[in-house]
Amino acid sequence: MKHTYPLGRLLGFVATLGLLLAAGPAASILQQVRQYRQQHEHELLAEYLRLLAIPSVAADSAGLRRTAATIADMMRQRGLTHVQLLRATTPGVPPAVFGEVRVPGATRTLVFYAHYDGQPVNPAQWAPGLSPFKPVLASGSLANGGQLLPLPAPGTPLNPEWRLYARGSSDDKAGVMSILSAYQALAQRGIKPTVNLKFFFEGEEEKGSPHLAELLHQHRDLLKSDLWIICDGPVHQSGRKQVVFGARGDVNVGLTVYGPKRPLHSGHYGNWAPNPALGLAQLLASMKDSTGRVTIAGFYDDVVPLTAAELEAVRRVPAVEADLQRELGFARPDGAGQSLVALINQPSLNINGLRSANVGAQAANVIPTTAEAMLDLRLVLGNDYQRQTEKVVRHLQRQGYFVTRAEPTDAERAQHPRLVRVTPETGYNAQRTPLDSPVARSVVQAVQSTVAQPIVLLPTSGGSLPLYVFKQELGAATLTVPVANYDNNQHAENENIRLGNLWDGIETMAALMTSK
Amino acid sequence: MKHTYPLGRLLGFVATLGLLLAAGPAASILQQVRQYRQQHEHELLAEYLRLLAIPSVAADSAGLRRTAATIADMMRQRGLTHVQLLRATTPGVPPAVFGEVRVPGATRTLVFYAHYDGQPVNPAQWAPGLSPFKPVLASGSLANGGQLLPLPAPGTPLNPEWRLYARGSSDDKAGVMSILSAYQALAQRGIKPTVNLKFFFEGEEEKGSPHLAELLHQHRDLLKSDLWIICDGPVHQSGRKQVVFGARGDVNVGLTVYGPKRPLHSGHYGNWAPNPALGLAQLLASMKDSTGRVTIAGFYDDVVPLTAAELEAVRRVPAVEADLQRELGFARPDGAGQSLVALINQPSLNINGLRSANVGAQAANVIPTTAEAMLDLRLVLGNDYQRQTEKVVRHLQRQGYFVTRAEPTDAERAQHPRLVRVTPETGYNAQRTPLDSPVARSVVQAVQSTVAQPIVLLPTSGGSLPLYVFKQELGAATLTVPVANYDNNQHAENENIRLGNLWDGIETMAALMTSK
Repeated sequence: MKHTYPLGRLLGFVATLGLLLAAGPAASILQQVRQYRQQHEHELLAEYLRLLAIPSVAADSAGLRRTAATIADMMRQRGLTHVQLLRATTPGVPPAVFGEVRVPGATRTLVFYAHYDGQPVNPAQWAPGLSPFKPVLASGSLANGGQLLPLPAPGTPLNPEWRLYARGSSDDKAGVMSILSAYQALAQRGIKPTVNLKFFFEGEEEKGSPHLAELLHQHRDLLKSDLWIICDGPVHQSGRKQVVFGARGDVNVGLTVYGPKRPLHSGHYGNWAPNPALGLAQLLASMKDSTGRVTIAGFYDDVVPLTAAELEAVRRVPAVEADLQRELGFARPDGAGQSLVALINQPSLNINGLRSANVGAQAANVIPTTAEAMLDLRLVLGNDYQRQTEKVVRHLQRQGYFVTRAEPTDAERAQHPRLVRVTPETGYNAQRTPLDSPVARSVVQAVQSTVAQPIVLLPTSGGSLPLYVFKQELGAATLTVPVANYDNNQHAENENIRLGNLWDGIETMAALMTSK
Repeated sequence: MKHTYPLGRLLGFVATLGLLLAAGPAASILQQVRQYRQQHEHELLAEYLRLLAIPSVAADSAGLRRTAATIADMMRQRGLTHVQLLRATTPGVPPAVFGEVRVPGATRTLVFYAHYDGQPVNPAQWAPGLSPFKPVLASGSLANGGQLLPLPAPGTPLNPEWRLYARGSSDDKAGVMSILSAYQALAQRGIKPTVNLKFFFEGEEEKGSPHLAELLHQHRDLLKSDLWIICDGPVHQSGRKQVVFGARGDVNVGLTVYGPKRPLHSGHYGNWAPNPALGLAQLLASMKDSTGRVTIAGFYDDVVPLTAAELEAVRRVPAVEADLQRELGFARPDGAGQSLVALINQPSLNINGLRSANVGAQAANVIPTTAEAMLDLRLVLGNDYQRQTEKVVRHLQRQGYFVTRAEPTDAERAQHPRLVRVTPETGYNAQRTPLDSPVARSVVQAVQSTVAQPIVLLPTSGGSLPLYVFKQELGAATLTVPVANYDNNQHAENENIRLGNLWDGIETMAALMTSK
């Protein structure tokens, strides 16, 4: 199985192209785009700082509206046509921002996708000097001794190792910025794209894209294309650029275990009143074994196995585990020795957070009334998010719990010794574009044309994107081409982007806009 | 074993006295104290509101200083002598407030103890309209449909069922207030106490009284007495007054389990990077069985069994479990069928709180870096708080964890797959005064003289007080005579006192000050 056709050809091609990189038209376009960026990086940085300073989280709909309006302005300034906000029928839903560039003579159309909303923030958890929507520069990753920097004076070169800290700086305003800047560089240098360009920037991705299907369906004519390029997520941990052929599905499941109706003094009632934090701990402990394998019945059923081509691609992914473990500071990973890339091709169950009463200085000697956990279920091809959630519910029931979707009533409290509330959120399933699909070749070729090192081909991202919706509503194929650094604290406090990744992203997107 | 001597005599006596209550000198003093309170309850309430409005938590040392100064003023206004703030040598420690009343001809001396500091607060968790240090009245318990009330106009009678909501309203400024008001009523009615009175109000009880021993030692001459009356904790759940002969010891143990050094995207790293919230859940689940019995090796060793007299008293405690379960809304208590009073005579392990990353609307799809729990170990006679903590530490080690007292180093992270940090706080051991001790009789008699129903005699409170310190530093005996309602949310949000309990408390304390 060393050289499966057509993956072998594709990968062989990737290798050759790396060597040919020095010269050729691709190179000249690359050089011009790079030169443009070098000459205008201060303006690009200033524009990006303005975009990052606008709060863009689900909890702040006004901030999301301002972000969408700002992006529409950025499109108009770059001469895009048909710039508009695509709205769902439900009022108050953050709009998607659309714009396009029609290229005379072009026969193919690419839609470039990114999202401008970010994960929820808890500002108290951010490092001193950082604030989610007050972007600041640092000399490197703060986790590795980087120091905060003042804004550099105009004219002073920007070090590509510098980091920009803000919510959304990498996930996924970096997508918006690199896509729009790539077109700007081409336009300013008079380089004509080889394909018609459409731009679609979503505002609800971190919420699970509850209205994406509706938007795509409403505007299916406007959004006709040969392929969607999804610019989201990080490049490979090895630092190599990558093309990702799919994404895992995702669904969050909230659990609330109930104790006494009011908090009780742990001295006067300890040993007698049941403690919901213990109940929750027992439930969570019952869901995984010591290697991190999920013990919920049927959890790994329904999975569509990887094709020969996909298995081969997985084998070629550079090993990064040892370096990552050192950097992340733990001695033994879960997964009983399987590689990281093998594990992200399986469904997962993660505890995103725990809360019951208080800890640390705020802790009081009480028996809490409730204990909460948020679970995150990642899905691979074949899993259904509702079926996967039901497996968790049945597991809770097998542990002797009465499962409710609402606050328990007095009657339920009186009848059931163990009560848990389940609050499933909107979810979606996984999607994968075959490695050997025709659309893959020119994309892989374009991305590879920007670097000498062989790029990484990943059958699926460990992260999630609502790719299934594009297939379902438009019959469209999707390929993900990320730009962010892997150590970007995406989804957590201290989110950041490495400037070099933003600049590389501009070159990657420009190459796709001029792909053969 | 139905009538052990001398408990039988004591209990027999209790019954008789109840019937004799109607008349007699005790009754007349009781009537005068009650009448004084009824005529001045608006002033007493106003004074108590001012005391409750001063923040009194360990985190606010300025507030604690103001509280101590205010209490000293209240003592002076009532004509107490030798009023002073007793200070520890360590600067910044909240002082104890002392005052006394020397009674010509009196041969016995009682010290009345209460504490003016309260448990930590998280104002966000308090009910709408409530704030820990903005005391407000309600028509009853908010948990049972009580409604917030405006302050009643002067002259309008105060309903004893009304509740006063504020941190410290029952634990334990209620002790301070009922003790000082009892003396005020006696003094205003010209009733001479039968014993010398000393008053000692501590400011660090909720922190574990780290400087109490030092204070008692420094001032052992000033504090000479025959008995300490500890006014803290609730009356019995049946509503009956009680005399408590001891208290459980207490120690808090904080646990922090470590995951990756930085929060990771749960999609890109889920299944591979170990999740500290799962590790913590597995640890906590390993500590108790399904009946709530602690499974830590040796946890129930060292316990001094109850005497025959104590067992008999335990048998006579009114059963309240069924009513409590209905009120608290759970179907099955821990303890495999043992009574609440039997269970509080055993050591306990409680989870006070859990925290890892975020839940609910703030939850993000991350693998958290740490997961924290705060444990509360209650100790009975025979347990040592350090030995009990060590049993927990050895249990963690038996679960395969490396136990550290500090943030783990890179070397420790690289060497140990499972890391937990243990942060034990100051603790203390249990103390018990024998039911058949000579000091018990007059106290039981005095408290019983205020009510017709037989009072409850409890060998130990489930809650904790640093009683061992009085024995150790002064060789002093202690008896606890509580005043608060049992459903006071002591140690939690929405702490409250039932006005009737405050008024009853004044009568109880006055009876002790005039005891034979």
